[in-house]
Amino acid sequence: MRNNRIREIWSEGGKAVNGWLGIPDSIASEAMVQADWDSLTVDLQHGLIHYDRALSMLQAISTSSIVPLARVPWNEPGIIMKMLDSGCFGIICPMISSREECERFVGACRYPPQGYRSYGPTRATWYAGADYVAHANDEVLTFAMIETEGALADLDAIVQTPGLDAVYVGPNDLALAIGEPPAADPTSARTLQEIERVVVTARRHGIRAGIHTGSPEGARRMFEMGYDLCTVLSDSGLLVSAAKATVARTRGDATPAGPSGPY
Amino acid sequence: MRNNRIREIWSEGGKAVNGWLGIPDSIASEAMVQADWDSLTVDLQHGLIHYDRALSMLQAISTSSIVPLARVPWNEPGIIMKMLDSGCFGIICPMISSREECERFVGACRYPPQGYRSYGPTRATWYAGADYVAHANDEVLTFAMIETEGALADLDAIVQTPGLDAVYVGPNDLALAIGEPPAADPTSARTLQEIERVVVTARRHGIRAGIHTGSPEGARRMFEMGYDLCTVLSDSGLLVSAAKATVARTRGDATPAGPSGPY
Amino acid sequence: MRNNRIREIWSEGGKAVNGWLGIPDSIASEAMVQADWDSLTVDLQHGLIHYDRALSMLQAISTSSIVPLARVPWNEPGIIMKMLDSGCFGIICPMISSREECERFVGACRYPPQGYRSYGPTRATWYAGADYVAHANDEVLTFAMIETEGALADLDAIVQTPGLDAVYVGPNDLALAIGEPPAADPTSARTLQEIERVVVTARRHGIRAGIHTGSPEGARRMFEMGYDLCTVLSDSGLLVSAAKATVARTRGDATPAGPSGPY
Amino acid sequence: MRNNRIREIWSEGGKAVNGWLGIPDSIASEAMVQADWDSLTVDLQHGLIHYDRALSMLQAISTSSIVPLARVPWNEPGIIMKMLDSGCFGIICPMISSREECERFVGACRYPPQGYRSYGPTRATWYAGADYVAHANDEVLTFAMIETEGALADLDAIVQTPGLDAVYVGPNDLALAIGEPPAADPTSARTLQEIERVVVTARRHGIRAGIHTGSPEGARRMFEMGYDLCTVLSDSGLLVSAAKATVARTRGDATPAGPSGPY
Amino acid sequence: MRNNRIREIWSEGGKAVNGWLGIPDSIASEAMVQADWDSLTVDLQHGLIHYDRALSMLQAISTSSIVPLARVPWNEPGIIMKMLDSGCFGIICPMISSREECERFVGACRYPPQGYRSYGPTRATWYAGADYVAHANDEVLTFAMIETEGALADLDAIVQTPGLDAVYVGPNDLALAIGEPPAADPTSARTLQEIERVVVTARRHGIRAGIHTGSPEGARRMFEMGYDLCTVLSDSGLLVSAAKATVARTRGDATPAGPSGPY
Amino acid sequence: MRNNRIREIWSEGGKAVNGWLGIPDSIASEAMVQADWDSLTVDLQHGLIHYDRALSMLQAISTSSIVPLARVPWNEPGIIMKMLDSGCFGIICPMISSREECERFVGACRYPPQGYRSYGPTRATWYAGADYVAHANDEVLTFAMIETEGALADLDAIVQTPGLDAVYVGPNDLALAIGEPPAADPTSARTLQEIERVVVTARRHGIRAGIHTGSPEGARRMFEMGYDLCTVLSDSGLLVSAAKATVARTRGDATPAGPSGPY
Repeated sequence: MRNNRIREIWSEGGKAVNGWLGIPDSIASEAMVQADWDSLTVDLQHGLIHYDRALSMLQAISTSSIVPLARVPWNEPGIIMKMLDSGCFGIICPMISSREECERFVGACRYPPQGYRSYGPTRATWYAGADYVAHANDEVLTFAMIETEGALADLDAIVQTPGLDAVYVGPNDLALAIGEPPAADPTSARTLQEIERVVVTARRHGIRAGIHTGSPEGARRMFEMGYDLCTVLSDSGLLVSAAKATVARTRGDATPAGPSGPY
Repeated sequence: MRNNRIREIWSEGGKAVNGWLGIPDSIASEAMVQADWDSLTVDLQHGLIHYDRALSMLQAISTSSIVPLARVPWNEPGIIMKMLDSGCFGIICPMISSREECERFVGACRYPPQGYRSYGPTRATWYAGADYVAHANDEVLTFAMIETEGALADLDAIVQTPGLDAVYVGPNDLALAIGEPPAADPTSARTLQEIERVVVTARRHGIRAGIHTGSPEGARRMFEMGYDLCTVLSDSGLLVSAAKATVARTRGDATPAGPSGPY
Repeated sequence: MRNNRIREIWSEGGKAVNGWLGIPDSIASEAMVQADWDSLTVDLQHGLIHYDRALSMLQAISTSSIVPLARVPWNEPGIIMKMLDSGCFGIICPMISSREECERFVGACRYPPQGYRSYGPTRATWYAGADYVAHANDEVLTFAMIETEGALADLDAIVQTPGLDAVYVGPNDLALAIGEPPAADPTSARTLQEIERVVVTARRHGIRAGIHTGSPEGARRMFEMGYDLCTVLSDSGLLVSAAKATVARTRGDATPAGPSGPY
Repeated sequence: MRNNRIREIWSEGGKAVNGWLGIPDSIASEAMVQADWDSLTVDLQHGLIHYDRALSMLQAISTSSIVPLARVPWNEPGIIMKMLDSGCFGIICPMISSREECERFVGACRYPPQGYRSYGPTRATWYAGADYVAHANDEVLTFAMIETEGALADLDAIVQTPGLDAVYVGPNDLALAIGEPPAADPTSARTLQEIERVVVTARRHGIRAGIHTGSPEGARRMFEMGYDLCTVLSDSGLLVSAAKATVARTRGDATPAGPSGPY
Repeated sequence: MRNNRIREIWSEGGKAVNGWLGIPDSIASEAMVQADWDSLTVDLQHGLIHYDRALSMLQAISTSSIVPLARVPWNEPGIIMKMLDSGCFGIICPMISSREECERFVGACRYPPQGYRSYGPTRATWYAGADYVAHANDEVLTFAMIETEGALADLDAIVQTPGLDAVYVGPNDLALAIGEPPAADPTSARTLQEIERVVVTARRHGIRAGIHTGSPEGARRMFEMGYDLCTVLSDSGLLVSAAKATVARTRGDATPAGPSGPY
Repeated sequence: MRNNRIREIWSEGGKAVNGWLGIPDSIASEAMVQADWDSLTVDLQHGLIHYDRALSMLQAISTSSIVPLARVPWNEPGIIMKMLDSGCFGIICPMISSREECERFVGACRYPPQGYRSYGPTRATWYAGADYVAHANDEVLTFAMIETEGALADLDAIVQTPGLDAVYVGPNDLALAIGEPPAADPTSARTLQEIERVVVTARRHGIRAGIHTGSPEGARRMFEMGYDLCTVLSDSGLLVSAAKATVARTRGDATPAGPSGPY
């Protein structure tokens, strides 16, 4: 089976730079592939994408050695298993709010006896090799999003879920959950304190931590705080922002605000 | 944030005429946009549409000032939140059968602390404005479909669900639920009695009521009964019916039955 | 090979009622299929359709026994041959303005030695049978559109093009060509005179004549004038018109103008 | 209503040969339609297909008299009802693990009072006839997949679920569930023993049994064991295998392994 | 008819800032719509787009008041007329190399008697209004690309083609044509000299001039040289460049080269 | 620039095994990619594919090191240049019937001064590298199809067209052109004689020769005759044939005829 390069980066002591895909088109994805991301995540939750468009985006990612990940719309086994069968090497699951939800999520990503994933890896075998099934339980990454009151309350139990590889923070939702203003690169002390508590808790129990960030600088701060994978903006945010800046500079207007997202 | 024109019509004492989209194509939708509907609903339940096609239909609606709504396939937070992120200004949720189900539905449509909607309004921000998140809880409409035995039994509790804006009757399913023949414009006394009970109950508790109808005349009767929003037929029903009538008139045959639906 | 039912209708002395598809979606096409058309034409010229969408529309037509036709965007052999390979049983070619253009068109529809059509009938074989190639030259219908100054001037020569089965009048363009106002059901005496001249000339030389019409009544007038095939309106025209009428009747407004098209 | 030919075959004492569609394209489906399958199943679980692509595949199947079935991604009423509204004549539901799950599945396939299917058969009416709703509860087939530990434990109760027409074995998952190696045509004695127990139990309680097989020979063995419907391979498995064999024979290389799947 | 805002800007003495769409997706287009472009051009030549994708991109542009333009793949009347019927308010035609070619191009954009455009403005009427045909010849813009040896030689005759509104320079091809290195913002004296000769010649004969540029600064220089419309980069160029810069800044690498294109 | 592996195979004295894609879907293409083809040709002529589907098929091919080629629908510069910009490393042009037509074809594939290809290699640069334009004239392969009376008559002149890399025989059309029965693996002596004359003439003038074949055995015969590249069947032919054989073997019926195509 093709190795999961994100696991390799981590085991070499490195940090992973993750790109975020919300535009439902394989050519937009191939444009993103031109940059040197370690992984690209097809976002089926807040991205404007469902399975029938996601599939061709995975083909675009497969024109490169960038690792394909997906965020699913909800903790629902049907779509989790489909994204894995389609060749994703990791799943980011939103709004995990309890240990029990986390177990249900992780189980959907693992073949028996570790989990209850159903057998049928059509494209995964094409992408990863004929021995995919034998190794998938070891290679596929599971990320539980920590972004709700429930998750913050049950954090210790969640991070110890057998088979969970990493937590992943959605700073906007996490902020809303604790009554702070949403922000991709938060400045609120309470939000930052929770974000730090998440990574510390994760690392203490031997798992990894990822997070959304709103700028390269924000990502560098999170890497310094201990995060292992940072998402920096998204294709749609980058495109809107670049277009607005181009028009403004052409007209001689003031530069507009930078990109927003990822969500 | 762009105002929700359906709320405005209602607060001005008006009635809303809603169109129904079951053909999974943005050009068919733009054809429907040529008529003077107050709102158009993308039907992901009985319409032949899922998310990847629905998205471009919403773009077609956005070429006008018609309010975009969606009916989701089921009371499932993943698809509810995706339709909202994509710019829908209201969600019609089928087969709400209890107060608890209704709370789960409404919660999926509201950001914390009112609900548990996840933050990430990509296209909603494009469509509605940069301040979307601040106002979405006040503008987005929630419609709980009343069409099952459970809903008829639990009606009083359902209409008092905090954050619920309206009930919405599916007369075919409602008729089936009480053992009457399905009909878009029902004539069965028992069915009509239940339909009237729904609107009376809703208005008594200060919320609105919408309903499917099978003809302009059926819609006018329902407006007179007190309904605030009527859906009149659907794109596919209109097209099939117009095509059949055209062929019959060209051949000199008897006029066939009128349009069916919406479903 | 499956028979071409339009040829059969004509040889039985009948008239053909043709529907027109301008919405680029196979479900809209299947809605049209519910009516009793003799043939349905996928319009790649003024319809909002090119090949990649037309193909699935042909599949929708193939769920019935309605004869599939196509109007091509221009007299260009690449697209003519592709539509035939995809299973169309006739081609309507716009803006044929000379005998030479007509020969080029007809040649693209016939295998050697009658023409220069290239061999490769993938879907045509699926749709029509394994012996398609042996019979295609006899079954496929060729319609040359008469709608330009050149065509009106060269009419006698055009109708005698070997292998041409029929002329087809576009009344809007024909009217524009002679300086009259465009109309789907023309009332201008000069336009009607030319329209009659076309059918008379065609029939005199033993070929058939088809025409666009804007209403069942318009079609019946053209059948009486001698036309063998009438197109009555289009899917998009029918849908826009039905939607407008529905909204107007629901609001109690005056009925809007009827459908427009086909183009 | 159009008859369900699979029911007819069975009542005539015959066996059904089912094809499997995992390529998300209506032309690939129409290629499969050229063979003499009794039914074709659109696989929304391990196939690379979700609803928006499945719909046009059903149109391709409707160009023939082959019976359209679907496997859904999970036991979720939204997608089950959508596939039925789209004209499927049977649903194969994966990973049914208890009597309660089976009841939920079957209920989603039946209109009240037998179940809780919602009314709105747009394309089903086009495909099957205007009287679809009156007969659908009798014609639509329900297949519960038996492939988990839970299902093997609760088998007797599952097969007696009112309204369940058949069980369907996924041999790969069933093997994994009992700790045996996955195989489309299993040779493990324990796996074969369980596969035989499933068909015997089903037939004892008067319902049918279907199964995946990895070759024509495997299918024939399962027919002999008593199975009523066998799936033989899949479109993607057939295509990969035929392509590999063609290249190998052209180069003079050793013949590669045969097709894999269905999953 | 809706006014052509580019004509208004010009008649008010203004300059037009044009965006360029090469990603074949309506959501990527809607992202571009968020910026304050005066017009957006769907590129069917070097963009990765043909008609079936271009159509939904036009719908995305129609969610705003930005003027929709298209560049066609070649001087071929079929595609020119289709893009106009679909609602484009201007056509940029590549590689016009003679007066005769220019006349053929302009004629395809004008209804008789000025040209030979065929009548059938389906979506154009939806977008621009019911009186579209009466005004289209006055509102639709025609841009002839000047980028070949032939065009440079025949420039005086080309710019005097009746009905031609503007020339449009492709600096890369123009440079290749004169043996200079291709560049979006050329620095070669010979290339710049030709570019200046084009705008001077155009303005002398009372028509307008547009041009590709590779940066806001390049655009401002061309505006100063007299150009009336400048294209600044493209969606795919902006996205690739923004992605590369984001990754480089996150990793602390040197900033990569800026965006390339438009082509 | 990425090397053109077909050129390398030839310069190493090898033969190229080419696969043929007529199913308009990127997953079907990725299934074909699993076999060890040297090149895969997207067929826009007789395949059921136009540009908007071809593009994603090229992405599927780019997940491997197989060389992407395309056959265009006709000798028309618009589509030839688009396929090259999209990353094809060679173009097969049908029905070249004269030296002049061949020059027009080859010119469309070469940047000035060798030809008149327009500059704008969006995806070609992504696929092949930033230095694509500098090397494309040397790497891109041009195949002129020899399959008409005209081509057979003008063969000597055609093969000497500057910049032409290879001829390519369509045996079905060639047979039709000389009045012989069409066949993928011809047995007619006259047809074989002409096929041999083509390869001999090509090699005499230092260019290569490719050909369609209907079986591995047919391909091997053509390699022995001197052909440098053989296409063996097509995806749709392989799939139909494999499906028919599977059903027949399952039912115990006689084996049906083998695959047909490529066309």
